[in-house]
Amino acid sequence: MRVAQAVAEHGALLGDIRTERILETFTIRDVTIETSDEEHLTRVLASIHALGDIEILERQDLVMAAHQGGKLEVRSRRPVKDINDLRYVYTPGVARVSRAIQREPQRAWELTGLGNMVGIFTNGTRVLGLGDIGPLASLPVMEGKAVLYQQFAGLSAVPMLVDTKDPQQFVETVVTLSKSFGGIHLEDIRIPDCFFIEDELKRRLQKPVMHDDQHGTATVALAAVINACMMTGMDLKQAKLGQIGLGAAGGAIARLAMAYGASQVFVSDLNEAAVAQVVKDGAHGADLATLMKECDIVLAATGKPGLIKPGLVRKGQVIFALSNPDPEIDPQAARDAGAAFASDGRTVNNALGFPSLFRGALSVRSRSITREMMLAAAEKLAALAEPGSLLPDPLDRRIHEQVTDAVAQKATEQGLAGTA
Amino acid sequence: MRVAQAVAEHGALLGDIRTERILETFTIRDVTIETSDEEHLTRVLASIHALGDIEILERQDLVMAAHQGGKLEVRSRRPVKDINDLRYVYTPGVARVSRAIQREPQRAWELTGLGNMVGIFTNGTRVLGLGDIGPLASLPVMEGKAVLYQQFAGLSAVPMLVDTKDPQQFVETVVTLSKSFGGIHLEDIRIPDCFFIEDELKRRLQKPVMHDDQHGTATVALAAVINACMMTGMDLKQAKLGQIGLGAAGGAIARLAMAYGASQVFVSDLNEAAVAQVVKDGAHGADLATLMKECDIVLAATGKPGLIKPGLVRKGQVIFALSNPDPEIDPQAARDAGAAFASDGRTVNNALGFPSLFRGALSVRSRSITREMMLAAAEKLAALAEPGSLLPDPLDRRIHEQVTDAVAQKATEQGLAGTA
Repeated sequence: MRVAQAVAEHGALLGDIRTERILETFTIRDVTIETSDEEHLTRVLASIHALGDIEILERQDLVMAAHQGGKLEVRSRRPVKDINDLRYVYTPGVARVSRAIQREPQRAWELTGLGNMVGIFTNGTRVLGLGDIGPLASLPVMEGKAVLYQQFAGLSAVPMLVDTKDPQQFVETVVTLSKSFGGIHLEDIRIPDCFFIEDELKRRLQKPVMHDDQHGTATVALAAVINACMMTGMDLKQAKLGQIGLGAAGGAIARLAMAYGASQVFVSDLNEAAVAQVVKDGAHGADLATLMKECDIVLAATGKPGLIKPGLVRKGQVIFALSNPDPEIDPQAARDAGAAFASDGRTVNNALGFPSLFRGALSVRSRSITREMMLAAAEKLAALAEPGSLLPDPLDRRIHEQVTDAVAQKATEQGLAGTA
Repeated sequence: MRVAQAVAEHGALLGDIRTERILETFTIRDVTIETSDEEHLTRVLASIHALGDIEILERQDLVMAAHQGGKLEVRSRRPVKDINDLRYVYTPGVARVSRAIQREPQRAWELTGLGNMVGIFTNGTRVLGLGDIGPLASLPVMEGKAVLYQQFAGLSAVPMLVDTKDPQQFVETVVTLSKSFGGIHLEDIRIPDCFFIEDELKRRLQKPVMHDDQHGTATVALAAVINACMMTGMDLKQAKLGQIGLGAAGGAIARLAMAYGASQVFVSDLNEAAVAQVVKDGAHGADLATLMKECDIVLAATGKPGLIKPGLVRKGQVIFALSNPDPEIDPQAARDAGAAFASDGRTVNNALGFPSLFRGALSVRSRSITREMMLAAAEKLAALAEPGSLLPDPLDRRIHEQVTDAVAQKATEQGLAGTA
């Protein structure tokens, strides 16, 4: 089919094709094409048009269609059919439930949705691949996260758009609202504000607080690294691991790798303060070239496409170039340059992390998500991957259930059960 | 059945009775009994026990059972079945949607759940019948409100527990979070803080803000008064209307009645400042006895059971004693004392008001809920009641749809469509 060729030639992805009608002189087909933006689409359509005998009858934007009216709804967990139901869930019945919680605040975990409710707080100052787009424009991303929470962990999550760039005001706002939620998920906040905000909230709140761009990503990345090492016969705890780029994800990956037991961790970043912070925790500072030369395993999370030139790749290296959508080095180019293993950010699916981390913590009412719980999640994720795969399928709910159990068990071992 | 008698003797309500098993020497029945509190239940059970030959095999608390795990869940509006769905609702598809909103913020109304999302903000300082129980203990009430929003108006509402008694901090918190919601519902906030908070938020936000205890209640009360007048052949616009108690609901009722066209409105309250505020807007201050003597229609919302002695009732008066659960005068006692019509707070079901007021405003993107929109809702509610009824059935969704339409139409007439 020449259309498929035209699509492929422009680097677009061909999706489903459905034949709608076959007529004597022509056939009508519904073809799904994935392009990177409007301009890309225009080019693809022009080249289809240029084929001459193909007419585009109708265009439909499936992504926009999937967002019409938003992606979430808040529903009653039980139907309200008659006046009796109403008297149970609302007045007068509800008064007795409120009084029970007033007497024993802990009962809110049982008699309300508190333990199932996560607030996704963002000010939209650093949205993946989009930068500082502000809170409102980041709402579709937060709704997407909430969809993943429901689908993968059965949690109820609500986008909370915090309209301030002042980290102190951000903190005060979350603290003032924190009674509404069992867990506080921080998302897409620029550095260094995200560090201050997370630290302050962890200090002031007795409930799980986690900045997903740091720790959720680090957890999933570590799981992938564990499996990449297994595939290439490398011993992660003996190997030298290098982290290029110490933004939110990079710093967390370096620290989690050290906590896992990687004996030598090298870090590199143009921001000297960022390097100093991680060095203080036990890492070694290095420039890019030295890091590439020294390390057996290299992770990059810099947002700088093409930063790693093939000439820097050492034979037998494991390389994760995580920046989305364009990696620091194309995995194929890295392999061609001698890497034993290379992958990009698309394989490290963040959706494998945060749902189970929060669900695990909430299920035992842990007041925090500790690094040990992240390690437990990473090890379980690594163990659950099919042989030959870096990570398990995020659409498989059983995976999330098992990771949740591992996280909950670790919290219990740490004496954190019932502390929220 | 002697059990029924025992239940009735203690003022408890008998609900469903289901025969479980009939055996030779005894019968097992499942009996639902509604009591006002634990102590009341103990008394009822003791008197059933005293009947001698009845054994209580098992107790089940239906209200607590209906609250287990909370009453709400946040769900995806569309199923996420495969990796394609995920690519539409999350990364990479979502980036294009975010960019579209960044370019044109108004598109958030179409491409996110914003226009369907109401935040129910409370600090729990004045919860109906319970007083100042704080934010956490008020969560079951807020969840109940959210259930009503979904069931009656198809809106998604989220309880927002504001952990402060400082009205200024309350305002700042709501403003900072306001981008998350299409509408701001204020609930169960003590006076006079509720007035300051509502006024400030209306001034600072370009979206519907409404304190339900004031305006939702006033809207439904006015509808009931309109129909009570019709039943008794009274002309509301010519009659003298008296409002006893100028708390959140009372002040709003007095003002809405004036806006409706009641020519003379008398108000009475021990708080002189509260009286002065409503007098400034056109009402006449009066003491309780004078008000009762002068007025054809009397509404009381004081929270003081038995405040209106039967001797104060004038022949032919219309009386609404709205305080819950115990009214200022028992309706039967008022009728016995000569009232042409008397009712209590149970008939004025607040659930008929707020869902349609917010849905109507949001459906046309009105930046506010005006008094005119409340009047339109009250008149429509009054018109939709069955002959002989004060108000329509809140469980009938068509009622809410028609009130929603009336509210939306009024907003459009006022030039408010598209102003949010």
